[in-house]
Amino acid sequence: MAERIWSVYLSGEIHSDWRERIQAGVREAGLPVEYSAPVTDHAASDSAGTGTLGEESQPFWRDHKGAGVNAIRTQTLIQAADIVVVRFGGKYRQWNAAFDAGYAAALGKPIVTLHDEEFNHALKEVDRAARATARTAEQVVDVLRYVIRGELP
Amino acid sequence: MAERIWSVYLSGEIHSDWRERIQAGVREAGLPVEYSAPVTDHAASDSAGTGTLGEESQPFWRDHKGAGVNAIRTQTLIQAADIVVVRFGGKYRQWNAAFDAGYAAALGKPIVTLHDEEFNHALKEVDRAARATARTAEQVVDVLRYVIRGELP
Amino acid sequence: MAERIWSVYLSGEIHSDWRERIQAGVREAGLPVEYSAPVTDHAASDSAGTGTLGEESQPFWRDHKGAGVNAIRTQTLIQAADIVVVRFGGKYRQWNAAFDAGYAAALGKPIVTLHDEEFNHALKEVDRAARATARTAEQVVDVLRYVIRGELP
Amino acid sequence: MAERIWSVYLSGEIHSDWRERIQAGVREAGLPVEYSAPVTDHAASDSAGTGTLGEESQPFWRDHKGAGVNAIRTQTLIQAADIVVVRFGGKYRQWNAAFDAGYAAALGKPIVTLHDEEFNHALKEVDRAARATARTAEQVVDVLRYVIRGELP
Amino acid sequence: MAERIWSVYLSGEIHSDWRERIQAGVREAGLPVEYSAPVTDHAASDSAGTGTLGEESQPFWRDHKGAGVNAIRTQTLIQAADIVVVRFGGKYRQWNAAFDAGYAAALGKPIVTLHDEEFNHALKEVDRAARATARTAEQVVDVLRYVIRGELP
Amino acid sequence: MAERIWSVYLSGEIHSDWRERIQAGVREAGLPVEYSAPVTDHAASDSAGTGTLGEESQPFWRDHKGAGVNAIRTQTLIQAADIVVVRFGGKYRQWNAAFDAGYAAALGKPIVTLHDEEFNHALKEVDRAARATARTAEQVVDVLRYVIRGELP
Amino acid sequence: MAERIWSVYLSGEIHSDWRERIQAGVREAGLPVEYSAPVTDHAASDSAGTGTLGEESQPFWRDHKGAGVNAIRTQTLIQAADIVVVRFGGKYRQWNAAFDAGYAAALGKPIVTLHDEEFNHALKEVDRAARATARTAEQVVDVLRYVIRGELP
Amino acid sequence: MAERIWSVYLSGEIHSDWRERIQAGVREAGLPVEYSAPVTDHAASDSAGTGTLGEESQPFWRDHKGAGVNAIRTQTLIQAADIVVVRFGGKYRQWNAAFDAGYAAALGKPIVTLHDEEFNHALKEVDRAARATARTAEQVVDVLRYVIRGELP
Repeated sequence: MAERIWSVYLSGEIHSDWRERIQAGVREAGLPVEYSAPVTDHAASDSAGTGTLGEESQPFWRDHKGAGVNAIRTQTLIQAADIVVVRFGGKYRQWNAAFDAGYAAALGKPIVTLHDEEFNHALKEVDRAARATARTAEQVVDVLRYVIRGELP
Repeated sequence: MAERIWSVYLSGEIHSDWRERIQAGVREAGLPVEYSAPVTDHAASDSAGTGTLGEESQPFWRDHKGAGVNAIRTQTLIQAADIVVVRFGGKYRQWNAAFDAGYAAALGKPIVTLHDEEFNHALKEVDRAARATARTAEQVVDVLRYVIRGELP
Repeated sequence: MAERIWSVYLSGEIHSDWRERIQAGVREAGLPVEYSAPVTDHAASDSAGTGTLGEESQPFWRDHKGAGVNAIRTQTLIQAADIVVVRFGGKYRQWNAAFDAGYAAALGKPIVTLHDEEFNHALKEVDRAARATARTAEQVVDVLRYVIRGELP
Repeated sequence: MAERIWSVYLSGEIHSDWRERIQAGVREAGLPVEYSAPVTDHAASDSAGTGTLGEESQPFWRDHKGAGVNAIRTQTLIQAADIVVVRFGGKYRQWNAAFDAGYAAALGKPIVTLHDEEFNHALKEVDRAARATARTAEQVVDVLRYVIRGELP
Repeated sequence: MAERIWSVYLSGEIHSDWRERIQAGVREAGLPVEYSAPVTDHAASDSAGTGTLGEESQPFWRDHKGAGVNAIRTQTLIQAADIVVVRFGGKYRQWNAAFDAGYAAALGKPIVTLHDEEFNHALKEVDRAARATARTAEQVVDVLRYVIRGELP
Repeated sequence: MAERIWSVYLSGEIHSDWRERIQAGVREAGLPVEYSAPVTDHAASDSAGTGTLGEESQPFWRDHKGAGVNAIRTQTLIQAADIVVVRFGGKYRQWNAAFDAGYAAALGKPIVTLHDEEFNHALKEVDRAARATARTAEQVVDVLRYVIRGELP
Repeated sequence: MAERIWSVYLSGEIHSDWRERIQAGVREAGLPVEYSAPVTDHAASDSAGTGTLGEESQPFWRDHKGAGVNAIRTQTLIQAADIVVVRFGGKYRQWNAAFDAGYAAALGKPIVTLHDEEFNHALKEVDRAARATARTAEQVVDVLRYVIRGELP
Repeated sequence: MAERIWSVYLSGEIHSDWRERIQAGVREAGLPVEYSAPVTDHAASDSAGTGTLGEESQPFWRDHKGAGVNAIRTQTLIQAADIVVVRFGGKYRQWNAAFDAGYAAALGKPIVTLHDEEFNHALKEVDRAARATARTAEQVVDVLRYVIRGELP
């Protein structure tokens, strides 16, 4: 059967190498995947509004302006994705990751969550809306390999 | 003009009296509002699956089962709501509140967030997707009064 | 909070009393539920086309004609439902029950499946698309009570 | 007129060679068709969850986990398909095939069913939701040839 | 089960009494049906635009203006209908009836066509998109009785 | 036929009495219409944000905050409307009226524009997206009477 | 600006050379257009069902079977089209052309009708739903050239 | 990550060089962007209807005819766009720009407005529906660079 390119959006935590690990594993497996993601450079992301549209004196509107610009990217790419992977790490509140998951769920996108067991209870609604919950980036690769090729590791 | 009943979904924090304060203010203002909300009894909510469909030995599936039953309620009611108010408090991670906000955003529902200034930065994506950010339950009442009646406090 | 009437569609098996048991339980619990269902009189259902639009000489078109008339009812009512309960019993192939489940799933309707454990494996795709899997009509009542009132049995 | 590539999803029975026969006939006819399908390796499909995301002690959750991973594939591909062919064979209950048909019907996808006459009555709702009912893989090829090229055999 | 009111749109021929016959039969059967229809006063319908918005010197724009006003009614009511009955009679070309059928089909509304056998071939695409084809107004009543009450005549 | 209540949204100019004239004419004609509209008190509308959610030092964000609160009302009510009447007067730029028209058009709502001939050319895109263009409030009433009752003046 | 390929569906009359004339004009103008259309071989179209899926003894079901197969083609291609041109000629009733127009209208596709002035009154609803009414194939080419290139003849 | 081509629709003012400035900046930055826009030749745009479909004696219908042809282009391209930039200049009423913004907003397209501060108050509803408000074409380029590449100027 002809090979389809799958679009995978990688949402969530930006302070660990999980995206790189998924990409390395997918590359090794030779899977036809193209990725999209939010801007993962924390400083750039925080300046998305003021760095492009001019300074703001108040922090709330500074953030608001930046979040608007970031949303152009994130919501467009989530809408274009076949699969949305959402990673929750130990640091920060990561409400935007949960927001992305809710957004993807309402669009009917299949979600794969990726997090440690310690967050099971706090993430139960998000995990329920997901089609799969992985513990490691390698498991996400295994899911992608199965979904795309029908092969188990 | 004939008075329309507005459906307001109250999502988020379940450990403070913000819902009651909104309802009291709305009652006092005489606004035609009907409410919906997740189950706010924490213990009942955690037992939503096992209490109705039978015990589970593993915590992950116990939560999964409960989240499924809770989702029947929450997603149906969010879909039926005119306005979704999402409250973020200081305790717990409240990923489900952010999930609800994302879910409502993708459905095009107008969102009002309600939280203290300390969470401004962490909630910037959620606030950007909202039409209004309130600091107090009373401000939410003021927004509802204006939206429904066109009157300012 | 004002009480909402929940529309529940009862799909599937027509040769046991599960619908009556759910309705009795809901009545006892005093829940605000209105029901809809396919025509459960087997003979009438099989004659839905020829009994209204005239005889057909060939069995295939006889069935086709009847299924068209039945679909006016079932698809309209599933689209109008808040919750779709799908019952799989031991007799017959019940492909129409599974079809209804798929139809409801694509519409984003919350599904509750109701079947014995012996069908777990055969129904795994359907159960996965459901928000809850019940074993008895009484458990369905318990789910409805929780979803509507937030109360556990 | 420029030739369009048609996406055909082949749902249902995995224990006979009907997919291969359709593909051979399409190849012979030189039709521009790309295929998608569920994973047709029965053993792999049953291990889709545990083989990628880790073991489960209970059969129900084992199946549930697997069905979630399979659904990422099947629902994405059905959504991307132009035409959904659903095959019902003599073995197994094949509720997932009927589920796929219902899912495709609610999405407005044109469905072609493929089954022996003995299932006519049991499949009447599914056949009614379909645009065509074929008895052989070769007839499906003939339908595809006509749909794509406007040519009869 | 609680009785639901069914909205039935009666599209097509305006020069015979088929609407009255359906309404009489439904009344006699005591079915909970509310009707909607295009304006069936031919002269008024032709003046819908100029009679409300002012004269037009050119026939094309006179018709265009009228068709715009009529469309406010017809498209709103078709969108609100549960069932669309489309009647084709012997006179006039009735392209608007076929247009309504196509419009209803794309919205996923169940259609019942009503016409004599002589039009079978010319209406084959429309009949295929319908869930039922009736020959008499009384058969439409029988279909409605079955759909709403599950009873055969 | 049972009388349906029609929801009519009255968008645009807030400095003349066109809404009152439509309402008076509709009342006189005894038509079953319920209205909705933006807040037409100019001062209140401009303070919609700061009057409910607190002051803003910068005019841009003051407006932004107010427009968010106003949008909760206007977009909800346009979505709930059967018909959207958009009035363009001689004063101000009224970009929000044109915005409402575009918003309604993309939702498939039937639009009636109301404006003097002098704006014909500037409003040609908006008028084209409308089903009718009226010159006086009385003509809008005539259109509503025809649409609802099928009667010409 | 990069050149986009426009998909144009050519619906309606199959007994004159209007499709060829549009294609010749488009070719001459060098416009990036790809076409789709129903099967225009009348005999093949009438045998679409029986020629692929086997004979039928009754004319109604023969047509029904054929219309189902034709609908796989036509509805898929209309859904994929950017623009739908609908041609009404003098012969036959052409209810399927009007059906296609209604179908396209409900999907929000821009429609161009093509017919002689004698049908203006009979086609007023269809023309109103269209964005343009042309009298000659050459005018359709002119519309396409303008729409695609912004150039007038 | 694989580079995605972003479709940007440039709506609004046609009497200054803002489109060229955005395109020059994007070219310099090497961003993968394809553009679409209304026909920006004012004379051609005004003759879109009569220049293709024949003269009209009355100015209103002349404009109406032209607006229909223009809408085939503009609405198709807005629907296909990832991002809609809307420019408001000092001249003309530009109701079509505001209409486009409303149309894009209802479709959920991310909007970037581009206008001078003097229009802030008049455009507050439009700016609120946008994800970003720019003052210069260069800022739009900066937003696009960030959205596409995650890089700040």
